[in-house]
Amino acid sequence: MKVEKLLIIGGVAGGASAAARARRLDETAEIILFERGPDISFANCGLPYHIGGVIGEREKLLVTSPEMMRRRFKIDIRTQTEIIAIDREKKEVVARNLANGKEYRETYDAVVLSPGAEPLRPPIPGIESPKVLTLRNLQDMDTIIQRLDGTKTTAIIGGGYIGLEMAEALVERGMQVCLIELAPQVMAPADPEMVTPLHQELIKHGIDLRLKTSVTAFAEVDGQLEIELSDGKPLLVDVAILAIGVKPETKLAAEAGLELGKTGGIKVDGHMCTSDPAIFAVGDAVEVADYVTGLPALVPLAGPANRQGRIAAENIFGRDTVYNQTQGTAICKVFDLAIGMTGLSEKAARRLELPYEKIYVHPMSHASYYPGTHPLSFKLLFVPDTGRILGAQAVGADGIDKRIDVIAVAIRAGLTVFDLEDMELCYAPPYGSAKDPVNYAGFVASNALRGDVALCHVDDLQHPAAGQKLLDVRTPREVSLGTIPGAINIPVDDLRDNLGQLSKETEWLVFCQVGLRGYLACRILSQNGFRCRNLSGGYKTWTMSVQ
Amino acid sequence: MKVEKLLIIGGVAGGASAAARARRLDETAEIILFERGPDISFANCGLPYHIGGVIGEREKLLVTSPEMMRRRFKIDIRTQTEIIAIDREKKEVVARNLANGKEYRETYDAVVLSPGAEPLRPPIPGIESPKVLTLRNLQDMDTIIQRLDGTKTTAIIGGGYIGLEMAEALVERGMQVCLIELAPQVMAPADPEMVTPLHQELIKHGIDLRLKTSVTAFAEVDGQLEIELSDGKPLLVDVAILAIGVKPETKLAAEAGLELGKTGGIKVDGHMCTSDPAIFAVGDAVEVADYVTGLPALVPLAGPANRQGRIAAENIFGRDTVYNQTQGTAICKVFDLAIGMTGLSEKAARRLELPYEKIYVHPMSHASYYPGTHPLSFKLLFVPDTGRILGAQAVGADGIDKRIDVIAVAIRAGLTVFDLEDMELCYAPPYGSAKDPVNYAGFVASNALRGDVALCHVDDLQHPAAGQKLLDVRTPREVSLGTIPGAINIPVDDLRDNLGQLSKETEWLVFCQVGLRGYLACRILSQNGFRCRNLSGGYKTWTMSVQ
Repeated sequence: MKVEKLLIIGGVAGGASAAARARRLDETAEIILFERGPDISFANCGLPYHIGGVIGEREKLLVTSPEMMRRRFKIDIRTQTEIIAIDREKKEVVARNLANGKEYRETYDAVVLSPGAEPLRPPIPGIESPKVLTLRNLQDMDTIIQRLDGTKTTAIIGGGYIGLEMAEALVERGMQVCLIELAPQVMAPADPEMVTPLHQELIKHGIDLRLKTSVTAFAEVDGQLEIELSDGKPLLVDVAILAIGVKPETKLAAEAGLELGKTGGIKVDGHMCTSDPAIFAVGDAVEVADYVTGLPALVPLAGPANRQGRIAAENIFGRDTVYNQTQGTAICKVFDLAIGMTGLSEKAARRLELPYEKIYVHPMSHASYYPGTHPLSFKLLFVPDTGRILGAQAVGADGIDKRIDVIAVAIRAGLTVFDLEDMELCYAPPYGSAKDPVNYAGFVASNALRGDVALCHVDDLQHPAAGQKLLDVRTPREVSLGTIPGAINIPVDDLRDNLGQLSKETEWLVFCQVGLRGYLACRILSQNGFRCRNLSGGYKTWTMSVQ
Repeated sequence: MKVEKLLIIGGVAGGASAAARARRLDETAEIILFERGPDISFANCGLPYHIGGVIGEREKLLVTSPEMMRRRFKIDIRTQTEIIAIDREKKEVVARNLANGKEYRETYDAVVLSPGAEPLRPPIPGIESPKVLTLRNLQDMDTIIQRLDGTKTTAIIGGGYIGLEMAEALVERGMQVCLIELAPQVMAPADPEMVTPLHQELIKHGIDLRLKTSVTAFAEVDGQLEIELSDGKPLLVDVAILAIGVKPETKLAAEAGLELGKTGGIKVDGHMCTSDPAIFAVGDAVEVADYVTGLPALVPLAGPANRQGRIAAENIFGRDTVYNQTQGTAICKVFDLAIGMTGLSEKAARRLELPYEKIYVHPMSHASYYPGTHPLSFKLLFVPDTGRILGAQAVGADGIDKRIDVIAVAIRAGLTVFDLEDMELCYAPPYGSAKDPVNYAGFVASNALRGDVALCHVDDLQHPAAGQKLLDVRTPREVSLGTIPGAINIPVDDLRDNLGQLSKETEWLVFCQVGLRGYLACRILSQNGFRCRNLSGGYKTWTMSVQ
């Protein structure tokens, strides 16, 4: 059936993408876009950066205007208009004009729901205080900027993307910031050892970081906000930003009887179609399938939202386009560092009891002799028998996005760690190395899979089995700065001359600083009849893991 | 047969990699590495940057020392030693100690040849002048630095990687630089329109750029160097750097009767083995197969050299490792810009008469509202029927390496432009866009392949066929700054109201600034019964192409 009238509910990322794509596909259909707020298609990812002053002009956040969408795409834009009900039987929605309170009905052939997700506000005593703010849209941003004016102290509750970006923004504004996180780590999707540099970076920038801490109550005291914490040390601040996560906004969908998924998001098929064939849903409100595990997931990210909007429009206008799932590629800037990830994390693999092996490398972001290079820490997860790549995480000051993007493509293409060995990437001294960190990770993983070296991990060195001993092959100077309890020291360059000191009854758990000399030491040992394993990523991985 | 004695001839990238890998694979074999110069494994890619002063300390270029290679890898390092002959029948080489002139023989079970490539010095009159310098190793670098001391004017002959990097280096030193290039463009592997920004960048930095110009003679005149040029305007400089390319150093291989390929490089199989099963060859001296075309090629780059060294060692010590060809991924920094490329260029596709389609996009390197973003120009080549990606080139101030690396992986994995549409890449405002330039290129190419819009290119607008007319859909203000001869102007936002002005007998060649509004205009036109094509990349591609 030809769709002659399309209603789009929600005018940010997914909704605006659906509207533009719909018009390009069908010049004559009537397209109405409803948006509860005053703005459409604003840059919600930029909000913290305007608060921090990095983005100076507020107008820069207005990606497009209703007027432009009307003229260029012939779309009937109705801002400040909330859809309060969907009458699926009559194929009508009930709209309310928030300016004058008037309600009216609008028929449809098809609907795209793009309601987004709203900040979680759990029922903590005192949370309704106007000093406890959340950030979702330009109005929230304006409110935060206004409330911050003349204040000095803030608490940020939650160490996810928004919490971290807000922490940086508020430090940029010269505020004192306390960051409170319930978990033992910030940035929940990442594995704990990979965020250790972020914790250090936050502390380095003067942030009072309180992990494993929850808020038990808020109270206004003498014009300030007192925050009662689980650690018993109350906090007195001017303003608090609540950023503990979002939940899909599904009220309208649920009341209309549309099916919701296990995660609480709106259930859609590969065409982004809900349980009603005339209603599609996109963006932060929908449940998607994870590309690596196939399991349902909520992924409130802008990239997927935009793609889903485009795909919903294509299917509505007669094409057969399937959404190719979500692999969770993401990046977050935390002061001078970035953390990036794609695919499966180790914690997810453990939770799902999926078989995996992992390796760590800590190379320089580009040629070590060229200025501006920084070390990065890179973790790669793969299937133990085939080497198929499952996921990667990286943290550092330079070149993080590039390496994660390369692995994101490799995962999509079903490549293995062996493919990474001879991946031919850009090299000139300002940009990379003749052996790029990605190649290097491929070497390390492939060497392990081929049996050139057996790996061990931090857990193994923390709890060596009977018959295992630790061997530190770094220089005495390095050892003097710290080593792993119980390790004996023979520098790799002296190893061949000192094999007589080592027992062949023992399995040697070998380590160096980042794993390279340990690997060579293991090659020397195993070819001389010793049993040994190399600590992947060496002492650097140890220091990231053991706090 | 077990290899008990391995000789490696040449101690830079490929040779040093082969030596280290060989030792890790075999702890007991005798390994001797011969190097004609005094240094092994130096950072040859860093030489221009030390000349320019960006890399301050010379020692930083010494990646490893003979002493370290001896201690750590138990390798017998013989610098200042030239191999002057290979006696394949006796399995011996003839070595000459360059310090004392003594010659001796050394037996072998296997040999790795890593002789590299030498700068071309064509028989131009006067080229033997000590004022005409080339750059291959640390000694050449030292000589150049010494000769530059107290001088002001230089000519660089050749606009390839070394020529461009040297041009930047000499400007960094405060020199006046004239860059002479025989071809109509610098950076020969790239397509001509993609290097237009480089030409502008060179001129912006005060370089006297002379394209389509050759040197006919050198002469020393009053302590200076007079360079006679094909354009009739002689040049007087203090020093000239000759950087017109390299040729594989094959004298030793040829004299030993090893087979050479059509390109003049040493012929090797997939195991990096020459026509003699005991002799392997790697690096700039060998002929490799191009990954995209399968044709023989010379690719004097550090990344492939390192991989080949590793692979030669693996095959020598009993493994079966195949070199996975070379796809020509490369990047070059030219002042504030970078140009990157991977896979097939358009000029190569034309030369080989391979079917291809191409698109151009000119997006921002990351979210346009976040500071530090820069436009980049991106060109994608693909197979017209299947959409399989053939190659890409990109030029700009930011994010070039990342996008080329993504396409490099996509080419390796055999992906299509459709896969690029929903490639899930890192997005946060400092790093990318919700629709990354790679996604955007995927949209544009896929739209063309699906028939949503017909493309046209600069050639078509330069020579419109009978019945074709040009339509500029930009604003009058943009048009006032320049347009394409013969175009009429209707801004896209006014197009629906002005369709009556346009003839349906005409095929409209539509363009805007970068291609996006032109695409929308074409969607409007074609759905209203007009025939039309959109200029890929818009007026920006035109200005890059038409000089």
